[in-house]
Amino acid sequence: MSQQHAITPTRAENFPEWYQQVIKEADMAENSEVRGCMVIKPWGYAIWELIQQQLDAEFKRTGHTNAYFPLLIPISYLEKEAEHAEGFATECAVVTHHRLEARKDPESGKTRMIPSGELTDKYVIRPTSETVIGAAFSRWLESYRDLPIKVNQWCNVMRWEMRPRIFLRTTEFLWQEGHTAHETREEAEAETSLMHGIYEQFQREVLALATIPGEKTEHERFPGAVRTYTVEGMVQDCKAIQAGTSHFLGQNFALAQNISFAGRTNERQFAWTTSWGVSTRMIGTLIMAHADDDGLVCPPRVAPKQIVIIPVMPQPEQRESIISHCRALADKLSRQQFHGMPLRVAVDERDLNGGTKKWEWIKKGVPVRIEIGPRDLEKGTVCLCRRDDPTGKKLFPSEEEFAATAVQLLEDIQGALLDRQRSFRDAHIRACNDLEELKRNFAGEGNADWLLCPWEGTPEQEEELGKSLRISIRCVPLGKLGEGPEAPCILTGKPTTRRVLWARSY
Amino acid sequence: MSQQHAITPTRAENFPEWYQQVIKEADMAENSEVRGCMVIKPWGYAIWELIQQQLDAEFKRTGHTNAYFPLLIPISYLEKEAEHAEGFATECAVVTHHRLEARKDPESGKTRMIPSGELTDKYVIRPTSETVIGAAFSRWLESYRDLPIKVNQWCNVMRWEMRPRIFLRTTEFLWQEGHTAHETREEAEAETSLMHGIYEQFQREVLALATIPGEKTEHERFPGAVRTYTVEGMVQDCKAIQAGTSHFLGQNFALAQNISFAGRTNERQFAWTTSWGVSTRMIGTLIMAHADDDGLVCPPRVAPKQIVIIPVMPQPEQRESIISHCRALADKLSRQQFHGMPLRVAVDERDLNGGTKKWEWIKKGVPVRIEIGPRDLEKGTVCLCRRDDPTGKKLFPSEEEFAATAVQLLEDIQGALLDRQRSFRDAHIRACNDLEELKRNFAGEGNADWLLCPWEGTPEQEEELGKSLRISIRCVPLGKLGEGPEAPCILTGKPTTRRVLWARSY
Repeated sequence: MSQQHAITPTRAENFPEWYQQVIKEADMAENSEVRGCMVIKPWGYAIWELIQQQLDAEFKRTGHTNAYFPLLIPISYLEKEAEHAEGFATECAVVTHHRLEARKDPESGKTRMIPSGELTDKYVIRPTSETVIGAAFSRWLESYRDLPIKVNQWCNVMRWEMRPRIFLRTTEFLWQEGHTAHETREEAEAETSLMHGIYEQFQREVLALATIPGEKTEHERFPGAVRTYTVEGMVQDCKAIQAGTSHFLGQNFALAQNISFAGRTNERQFAWTTSWGVSTRMIGTLIMAHADDDGLVCPPRVAPKQIVIIPVMPQPEQRESIISHCRALADKLSRQQFHGMPLRVAVDERDLNGGTKKWEWIKKGVPVRIEIGPRDLEKGTVCLCRRDDPTGKKLFPSEEEFAATAVQLLEDIQGALLDRQRSFRDAHIRACNDLEELKRNFAGEGNADWLLCPWEGTPEQEEELGKSLRISIRCVPLGKLGEGPEAPCILTGKPTTRRVLWARSY
Repeated sequence: MSQQHAITPTRAENFPEWYQQVIKEADMAENSEVRGCMVIKPWGYAIWELIQQQLDAEFKRTGHTNAYFPLLIPISYLEKEAEHAEGFATECAVVTHHRLEARKDPESGKTRMIPSGELTDKYVIRPTSETVIGAAFSRWLESYRDLPIKVNQWCNVMRWEMRPRIFLRTTEFLWQEGHTAHETREEAEAETSLMHGIYEQFQREVLALATIPGEKTEHERFPGAVRTYTVEGMVQDCKAIQAGTSHFLGQNFALAQNISFAGRTNERQFAWTTSWGVSTRMIGTLIMAHADDDGLVCPPRVAPKQIVIIPVMPQPEQRESIISHCRALADKLSRQQFHGMPLRVAVDERDLNGGTKKWEWIKKGVPVRIEIGPRDLEKGTVCLCRRDDPTGKKLFPSEEEFAATAVQLLEDIQGALLDRQRSFRDAHIRACNDLEELKRNFAGEGNADWLLCPWEGTPEQEEELGKSLRISIRCVPLGKLGEGPEAPCILTGKPTTRRVLWARSY
């Protein structure tokens, strides 16, 4: 593509505003008049449906079933698990009345609807469902034979946001939350790891996001959890986004909610529970990780359309033959499969000029754009552009060759996006054993690398250092990245082999 | 099956209680501690997923796309369309606060969470989304070129219920709501009819429910609609269930919410809108229409498992060979397709006695049950029971023949359930031209036929007659059923060719 860009401002000029404009120009979502709540428009929602479909298959493959639990949570449920309740108290939407009454406003003369029918027992809209699902587990569970219980729900949740940002932090969002109960600690820990691994793999293979899997520190843990595992994505301004979490809840919720059972020797035992979730926030991560100054770049596995065919018709009398040719090609492509689903192909037959159409599909991030005009028809070729190629180079394969290799082409694009994302990530993570260097790295507003530091600070020290630099410990990476030779903690000087990742985040 | 029944009480003994027990024994759903809200358990939710999947394909085939709109509706939005607001005012859950504060209760010493952060602008949880989606349409729509807009959302809604009944009338329920905007009245009317037709066809072909499609009277119309079309199902106690509605909203919402556009000659015009929806209520209808005194009877197209194979292993040493044989058969079956989806087959390998397993699957309504024991293995046969056969007759086809005809068998069961349901319905609808006969028909508590009556009463007369007999006009049936030779209105004596259906309903 040329030096001009479809998105104003560019990433370099103003990253947060660029993000808003990408979403707007791709027609993915918009802010609504309901404070902090977004409308997910068809193009954005189609991406969510593809995420759901492919992730749901993984959940089912690993023995989970879907169910649905109430939207409202009695406040008394929250009170049972104090740490959990406190964690969400400041962001709960509260339902206090169950009807409206029409009253005439004496000043304006207008009819106003006034809340009426005050509830004795008030409710919050679920910010997450550990309590209400725990209550169900408590009813369902009698004997060790009923275990494990492995359910998941796809639903909306609400956390009142003071500084909303579309997709990344909205008052209402869509997500899935898995909840499981097990007989033993080991099984629950294995489940927590399994789902953590599925998230890492899903983001890598489907969203082309090379996240860093790790464990949260005590300070950053889910309220009520014993351990929280996270996958942390890096986006193009080097900020971190927590893109999925899996929690080992120990027996905390089981004790608070009496999730107990008769064990193998008939003694009463408490279950070990887990929960794990990913949300529409992943779409925000996807945009910030892959989009460029011309708009969205959609990995093929979640692209609502993977290939768009634009008929080029300089003369009206060519219209019919070119369109029918394009339709036949689309039909041929649609009968091929990519990762178990038919190729998603569109022919853009609209009566608009070619440039308008072309830029619309570029901004929507469709991986492969094909143009077919009278000369292509004659020569049996197509004009092909890959969205992931920033040079916008045109290729002219024969139509036959293109049709035969379309699936491989999508696979290549998927792989190229992942490689690029992984390289970017690796170029912006480095070791740092010196507090002054950390402070320099995170001074100012610009992009800042993630720093891997020896750390043995307390939660209070972590909070203080984090607040002063507007950063946080994203995780203790699993595996080699989270370990190093013994070195002094960057803050306290206490020797440690543990490494944590400090970063600025959304 | 024997004279003994798996469900107590039977339908004849106590229909409402039988209904609750069927749901419980099939493990489909349960009431939660949140008043009027249910937990949909995996078996019930799997039916909903199959409904969603197949209906969603129809929506997409007819040019609709999915989107998602906010859960909360500002009360000011409701106030804009007075009739609509009034219709839902008495059943709205109201959100008035956005946080909780911990306070120590001086009496008990316990920490209580108290609503705090009162909102200036209060919200209701959507009872339906015409207003919030209308506001989006108003933002999106500029010119006639943007029309039609055809979106749908799958979501939860809330209508505060004083007398909840699981699946049929719950405070929270799941549904889809389609919303469209069109340039002309004719297009909007055609859309309303199209979706009404899709509902009728879906219920008939997929749920094996022969509904009566018709139009609601003014009195029964959706608040704010110009016309409301309904599909009315009859269940086994002869009560009616409104199983889906499609509304032509005229320009009512467009005027109230300024859904307008520049027309073809550039003049400002208001759009014509529609909305249409079906909900988890269909699952209640399905149960009441097909289940019997042994539990659920699931039409194959929405059965979470269509075929269950129970290995019969009198001797432990036969276990391995029989189970591996059953698995091979399941595998073979799963590779076949029924209505575009792989057959859903389970092998019940649990270590329970055969009778327990058998009755569990009967109560869950699995269409085909297969038992395979050592003698079957020798002879190459299977023991087969059809869930729709109330005699529980065992058939002994060769395994080869069964595998070759399994898809056809499911098709036969699907057809047989529809035939039975349609015959039941037709046996309980009759013409009635006499008010006294109507009163006799609906006196008392027992099952009462639906009566097709000449009717020209006013909405007030309709309400009065309805209240006195606890009945309602379900619809003016479309087509021949809704017309007859000129006859005096059953109440007013005014001559009419119109026929309406009076019935008792859920």
